[in-house]
Amino acid sequence: MIDGALLIGGEARQAANRFTAVNPASGETLTPDFSSANADAVAEACTLAEDAFATYAATDLESRAAFLEGIAQNILDIGDELIERAMAESGLPRARLEGERGRTVGQLKLFAGVVRQGDFLDATIDPALPDRAPLPRPDLRRVNLAIGPVAVFGASNFPLAFSVAGGDTASALAAGCPVVVKGHPSHPGTGELVARAIQKAVADAGLPAGVFSYLPGETNELGGALVADPRIQAVGFTGSRGGGLALVRIAAKRDEPIPVYAEMSSINPVVLFPAALAARGAALAKEFVGSLTMGAGQFCTNPGLVLAVDGPDLDAFVEAAGSALTDSAPATMLSPGIHASFEQGVAALAGHEAVRTVARGKSGEGVNQAVGAFFETTADQFLADVKLSHEVFGSSSMLVRCRDLPEIALVIAKLEGQLTATLQVDPADEAEAAKLVPVIARRVGRILANGWPTGVEVAPAMVHGGPFPATSDGRTTSVGTLAIARFLRPVCFQNLAPALLPEALHDDNGWGIARRLDGKREASPR
Amino acid sequence: MIDGALLIGGEARQAANRFTAVNPASGETLTPDFSSANADAVAEACTLAEDAFATYAATDLESRAAFLEGIAQNILDIGDELIERAMAESGLPRARLEGERGRTVGQLKLFAGVVRQGDFLDATIDPALPDRAPLPRPDLRRVNLAIGPVAVFGASNFPLAFSVAGGDTASALAAGCPVVVKGHPSHPGTGELVARAIQKAVADAGLPAGVFSYLPGETNELGGALVADPRIQAVGFTGSRGGGLALVRIAAKRDEPIPVYAEMSSINPVVLFPAALAARGAALAKEFVGSLTMGAGQFCTNPGLVLAVDGPDLDAFVEAAGSALTDSAPATMLSPGIHASFEQGVAALAGHEAVRTVARGKSGEGVNQAVGAFFETTADQFLADVKLSHEVFGSSSMLVRCRDLPEIALVIAKLEGQLTATLQVDPADEAEAAKLVPVIARRVGRILANGWPTGVEVAPAMVHGGPFPATSDGRTTSVGTLAIARFLRPVCFQNLAPALLPEALHDDNGWGIARRLDGKREASPR
Repeated sequence: MIDGALLIGGEARQAANRFTAVNPASGETLTPDFSSANADAVAEACTLAEDAFATYAATDLESRAAFLEGIAQNILDIGDELIERAMAESGLPRARLEGERGRTVGQLKLFAGVVRQGDFLDATIDPALPDRAPLPRPDLRRVNLAIGPVAVFGASNFPLAFSVAGGDTASALAAGCPVVVKGHPSHPGTGELVARAIQKAVADAGLPAGVFSYLPGETNELGGALVADPRIQAVGFTGSRGGGLALVRIAAKRDEPIPVYAEMSSINPVVLFPAALAARGAALAKEFVGSLTMGAGQFCTNPGLVLAVDGPDLDAFVEAAGSALTDSAPATMLSPGIHASFEQGVAALAGHEAVRTVARGKSGEGVNQAVGAFFETTADQFLADVKLSHEVFGSSSMLVRCRDLPEIALVIAKLEGQLTATLQVDPADEAEAAKLVPVIARRVGRILANGWPTGVEVAPAMVHGGPFPATSDGRTTSVGTLAIARFLRPVCFQNLAPALLPEALHDDNGWGIARRLDGKREASPR
Repeated sequence: MIDGALLIGGEARQAANRFTAVNPASGETLTPDFSSANADAVAEACTLAEDAFATYAATDLESRAAFLEGIAQNILDIGDELIERAMAESGLPRARLEGERGRTVGQLKLFAGVVRQGDFLDATIDPALPDRAPLPRPDLRRVNLAIGPVAVFGASNFPLAFSVAGGDTASALAAGCPVVVKGHPSHPGTGELVARAIQKAVADAGLPAGVFSYLPGETNELGGALVADPRIQAVGFTGSRGGGLALVRIAAKRDEPIPVYAEMSSINPVVLFPAALAARGAALAKEFVGSLTMGAGQFCTNPGLVLAVDGPDLDAFVEAAGSALTDSAPATMLSPGIHASFEQGVAALAGHEAVRTVARGKSGEGVNQAVGAFFETTADQFLADVKLSHEVFGSSSMLVRCRDLPEIALVIAKLEGQLTATLQVDPADEAEAAKLVPVIARRVGRILANGWPTGVEVAPAMVHGGPFPATSDGRTTSVGTLAIARFLRPVCFQNLAPALLPEALHDDNGWGIARRLDGKREASPR
């Protein structure tokens, strides 16, 4: 059911202020209209989240895992209504959204497994050494506890996998934190369907209703009030640099500052090494254009920067990529606002005196169409104007022609932090690539070879993060099991009686989790 | 040798601007005078640190561990000159400083063991699944890498264990980060001796000289320039709330904001439960005064707040504590500045209309003497004036008389973040204590029972941290092996050829470390 309500704990409520969503493919306004949450709704949701915290944080691992699986099932149970609504609100095609639903459900199930395994608790026991000289050692036990209620800001470019029940929500709930979602105004119907699925899972599990609230709205004040609320203890955000930094500033000004995990901006350099370029330049050109234009280029990991040594092989790559792009179809962007920003960014590059337009994609009928863009410049010119390194969200990329590999290293060392870097590298390139990898590793969260950065695996070893401004906290990831660490903090218990210890630290290890004993790790039992 | 030099990489250099240290026990100025580092020295040290980073971060585990042990040995090799200079500069007694030297050396050796073990790398491998449908999984490998050059601010209250070669330096070097120390102006001779020991260890190990620099100085500009330097990637600090917050602000304003780990302010509540108070109130009173006055109360974990239910047992405790404090000897404080702040804080409490002075310690001859102070108030009055909950650094503590245990819970829930909370709890108290523990756990980094918060074990399970303002980042600890995590960030390598992978992620696991394979942890081999 979609009726435009706020979901505050167990309740659904209509607000006086309303907003509407637009079908970006047609420009038509969708029905119904939606409640826009105000500061009172924020305060109410946060009060409920705080009230629910102690009970939810104390859930045993199995109950919490089953709750996450319940959310996953309830999302599947929505059926095709979810896919159709998401198509209408995002302009994304059915296959993509069905895949994204699979990823969303898969993430929830993955975190259920993480919860059952219990490694995220990092349970650590240093037994007492009563006879140690000159002083005895007390009994010390450490465990990760949930940080408190978490605010999650849904992203527009993943209306399922990084929105209401996306990676931030899944990892925060897995950590034991109640979640208050600020719904993205571009897909409020999709958001409400998913929010109701979570609300039902909370009730089915017999958890306090405040474990989850959903606050749609289109004002900056709503997000600001949520981050400023003293009950909120951490923030997950995926979106623009401006939006993310605004939340970081609000969080820093609180009486008690809190961490903000904002995934913001990345141009994802791709380095074409000489042997790879010579051996398979034409194939790389096709693959590059495929990665660039996939989903209208609306991925955080879109390849927005290509670095290579100038020469005939690069000329051939450019020609092939230009040709492929010229033949590429336009695609509907997520919203009129995102389309306008893309057009503006592309126009600025096209009109820049140091930039040559290699090719544009096919123009299309209809509104909000992304027409792919590929530009080129030289390393000198790229380094001379920082604007050339700013992200243009959508299918736009810039080739930087470099004199040699050291100049590529120089460009990379001067880049801002990035989510990814990609190496197209053949065995003959490895000696040179080995010199570059440590330079690249300082600027990114993920280095990949002979693939493309779009497509982010949800797995234990994934890092979807990176130094500022890729994220506001380069020590973290928002994709993969390590994302749970963002919502935990360690607490030490010294000489506490068993009745006062958290379950994870009891001698009998009733949860059967891997722990660290006297500095040594045990193996995971599952 | 102490000659007042700056140590910039491998060099020792005198600066034109000079400052001197004072013997707080006598008020006399000590010789020699010391170089005060300026912005040029900061830039030079940071350039050298950045130049050294790639080489140092790539050291194998055994070499890095041996380097840490080399520092430890060089500190021991200084001999009694170090203890005598530290006594003269800090006013702390010989036994305390010999113990602190042992802890300093022990910390370095502990981190050598952490490095050899390699668990801090959190090496995680998700093997490729080429046949997975609908899409194959790439080979994903994640490892923690050193964050970059680190700035460390020495603390005045631990001139060895939390200064030049203290916990921040040891954990940053263990992580693979070059360190630039801003030396504390209260103990510049002690600092220089230790800094020369590190400088020699760097040379002995054949490491790039920029792995370590030492910049003494007494200006705020020095610290500000260091945190603002773009080469610095993280900051470790122990000191005042004002000083820590100033560094946090500078770090947040950088083009690339960086994490600041500031350990700042804590009053460390002690809860006397009814049965414990009835059974052993007199003993608790003596122990409390011992913890309060130890080292002139100049510990981050000094018990500055006592919470108990009002009644005759509490009256007896107060009388016994007052009596013990009245008999307590004064002690020299670390510096005239710290002594002046203590006097001011105690006078403000003594003159506060809602506060009763229970007792003061014995007055002493000489300068900079801390005379212990114990005050009392009620919960209503404590909650009505936030000033009553501010830290008075030194041997000053406040008893808050509460009506009942729920009122104690209320006071704790309204406290700012704390490093520790202490429970004096007998078996008959456990049911009530169990209700309070989750409330306390949200406000502190460590909960201890039937002991005193002073005395922080350096161990895997220790947390010396806590929510703001105990620290600026409540997800971390500055004491214990987990402190290394502050200076690491995860990086994922996808489909990289073996020649391009960090050693920790090679299939053959040449370092023999415990890793996570396909989501499951291996046991630590050592």
